[in-house]
Amino acid sequence: MDAGQDAKGEKHMLVQKYKDMLSKKSVIRELSEFATARGQEIGYENVFDYSLGNPSVPVPQAFTDRMIQMLATRDPMELHGYSPSLGITSVREAVAASLEQRFGIPYRKEHIFMASGAAGALSHAFRLVTEPGDEILTFAPYFPEYGPYVNLTGAVLKVVPPNTETFQINFPAFEEMLTEKVMAVLINTPNNPSGIVYSTETIQKLTDIMRRKQEEYGHEIYLISDEPYREIVFAGVDNPCVSKFYDNTIMCYSFSKSLSLPGERIGYVAINPACKDAETMIVMCGQISRGIGHNCPPSIIQLAVADVLDKTADLSVYETNMNLIYDCLVELGFTVVKPGGTFYIFPKALEPDAVLFCNKAKKYDLILVPADNFGAPGFFRMAYCISTEKVKRSLEALRKFVEQEYGK
Amino acid sequence: MDAGQDAKGEKHMLVQKYKDMLSKKSVIRELSEFATARGQEIGYENVFDYSLGNPSVPVPQAFTDRMIQMLATRDPMELHGYSPSLGITSVREAVAASLEQRFGIPYRKEHIFMASGAAGALSHAFRLVTEPGDEILTFAPYFPEYGPYVNLTGAVLKVVPPNTETFQINFPAFEEMLTEKVMAVLINTPNNPSGIVYSTETIQKLTDIMRRKQEEYGHEIYLISDEPYREIVFAGVDNPCVSKFYDNTIMCYSFSKSLSLPGERIGYVAINPACKDAETMIVMCGQISRGIGHNCPPSIIQLAVADVLDKTADLSVYETNMNLIYDCLVELGFTVVKPGGTFYIFPKALEPDAVLFCNKAKKYDLILVPADNFGAPGFFRMAYCISTEKVKRSLEALRKFVEQEYGK
Repeated sequence: MDAGQDAKGEKHMLVQKYKDMLSKKSVIRELSEFATARGQEIGYENVFDYSLGNPSVPVPQAFTDRMIQMLATRDPMELHGYSPSLGITSVREAVAASLEQRFGIPYRKEHIFMASGAAGALSHAFRLVTEPGDEILTFAPYFPEYGPYVNLTGAVLKVVPPNTETFQINFPAFEEMLTEKVMAVLINTPNNPSGIVYSTETIQKLTDIMRRKQEEYGHEIYLISDEPYREIVFAGVDNPCVSKFYDNTIMCYSFSKSLSLPGERIGYVAINPACKDAETMIVMCGQISRGIGHNCPPSIIQLAVADVLDKTADLSVYETNMNLIYDCLVELGFTVVKPGGTFYIFPKALEPDAVLFCNKAKKYDLILVPADNFGAPGFFRMAYCISTEKVKRSLEALRKFVEQEYGK
Repeated sequence: MDAGQDAKGEKHMLVQKYKDMLSKKSVIRELSEFATARGQEIGYENVFDYSLGNPSVPVPQAFTDRMIQMLATRDPMELHGYSPSLGITSVREAVAASLEQRFGIPYRKEHIFMASGAAGALSHAFRLVTEPGDEILTFAPYFPEYGPYVNLTGAVLKVVPPNTETFQINFPAFEEMLTEKVMAVLINTPNNPSGIVYSTETIQKLTDIMRRKQEEYGHEIYLISDEPYREIVFAGVDNPCVSKFYDNTIMCYSFSKSLSLPGERIGYVAINPACKDAETMIVMCGQISRGIGHNCPPSIIQLAVADVLDKTADLSVYETNMNLIYDCLVELGFTVVKPGGTFYIFPKALEPDAVLFCNKAKKYDLILVPADNFGAPGFFRMAYCISTEKVKRSLEALRKFVEQEYGK
């Protein structure tokens, strides 16, 4: 059946929806494919590929050692057995203890649900607190996948326009958009794509407004805090724990970036113990899973990660790269806010249309991502999770590009 | 907010739906918990726990060896890197080649989507071919999780009553229920809970009817074939490949049972190359994933499984157990159809109410599952994935139970 075009007419709109999505190619993926193709011509080491947010440092050796040790010594039926639907109990306990020790919030295993990376965690969070038609607010610039992640649940993602001076929050716009239809506010700090970390002042003001509106509307407004970059914060930058500011916080975490394990799909939902019905919400995650076919992250990965909760990959390369790029951008006259963390930087293009700007950069083998999709047209993103040596060579290309195309 | 009871009234029905699910305890889980508790009193070796379908034989050593070898030697960034959204290309190729070699159907990687176990595979299949309100038919007795799996997508699961003589298909009931609203037929052969394998005759007749109805209704009717027990088939039993009989077949496979890896969440969707729009449907699976937060099974597990596609755990214990139990049941006067595969057997209780029957069995430390939830009241399920030694001891308890309670 050609979905949506059969005799039943309207009946197949949803299927048609998935089909329609196929025609919209991801800009990031297209650029990444371009970089790969170009690499086959001139050697990938000569392509300055800033397109993809793939970690570029290895997982801690302790993780690998633990995996090998479990495989070599443990009863395979136990090791590879079904995980309980909320996650392996000892793993949830370890996550809760680590969070409590680090942030001083009394998390217990009853507040933790093990999920398949941030995407899995968010898919549960959205379903926990919204019905179809409810709104979730997020802030530009934002991770473009939030669109399908939210909209395919039936809820509606609304994007608050950016504060392009600082990439902190545009509060006047936020207050206006925080209507009674909004059931959740979704933030991502440290932020992809801006690299900005929300300040204590920002989070305080955000949560003050949310508390006021909760009271005004007579219903909870949840704060969904997407924190995959939590461990990648640069020297001197304050990275406040969002959950400390607001009881109704649903923290969504992924180990993809901190442990350089994006392919192993492991993360968690942690609901603030002071959140209304926190423990019920965690148990509900297990029910949501049945409908979306989730059924826990892999047992062996849960167990191995629980052993390295307080470790990270060696993330220092990202700060080294950031400083090199930031200094060069400033020197070349770019408008750019200095990142406080992540492995992204988000400068303003040297002409109004960032798509044209990034297209011209390709001639210099610089793969830059225009930010129209991130809700901030005119800007572009560089994902500097590449070797420092390559960053250095790329800056020569950047200088040449700016000089030849923009006469600077 | 107490979902569903706030000022917005109806707005929170879906959230309420997940909350409501919490009050409905799973019979299997309750019995399993009872068995664990009883085990703590008298030693678990003395509890004849037939409640859970957990594999009881270890994963092939080749899987473990491959995992260790990859961890010890491969570049961790590559090993643990993002999988493409449809699965790792080499893994999809290997799965397609294995299926082609085994079944003679020209599968290519374009027909394969790697999924998180059967639950993940089914959750994609249902969304591929149904809109909210569409019907999916399945046949009693059936795996009770099909209920939430289907109904939480918005589609509606309808259950064709059983043919209790053979546990093949009740065709008169099927033909009556196969209305224009039915977009897919979901089968599970070898079957949980009956242990029955659908015969060639059954599958031929089923697919003949479906072809006729497709033509009559002018829309495709998909056959979703859930095959986690495909490799557990007993001597002399013919286990026809469903996909060979019907072009519009979506095969959902899991390695949980064949490789004893239920916790590692690995399986696939394989769409018959002759299915209309097969390749588009596979690409659509990648879009569906975005909405449900799925994003592929873990990379390392994909890679390791691809190396042991044509291996299984040593599954022979299940047939040994089945024969012991079947002979004893027959001797004791039970009505029971001999299983052709799986690790389940599905006898008729010795009184009309199987719940009462299974409750009485508990006194003899026999944990049997009444089949009301499986769509076949009056029957009960035994999951004999336990050691043969324990099976033998359990049969003594069974004899005593039947003698003392039913005077046989």
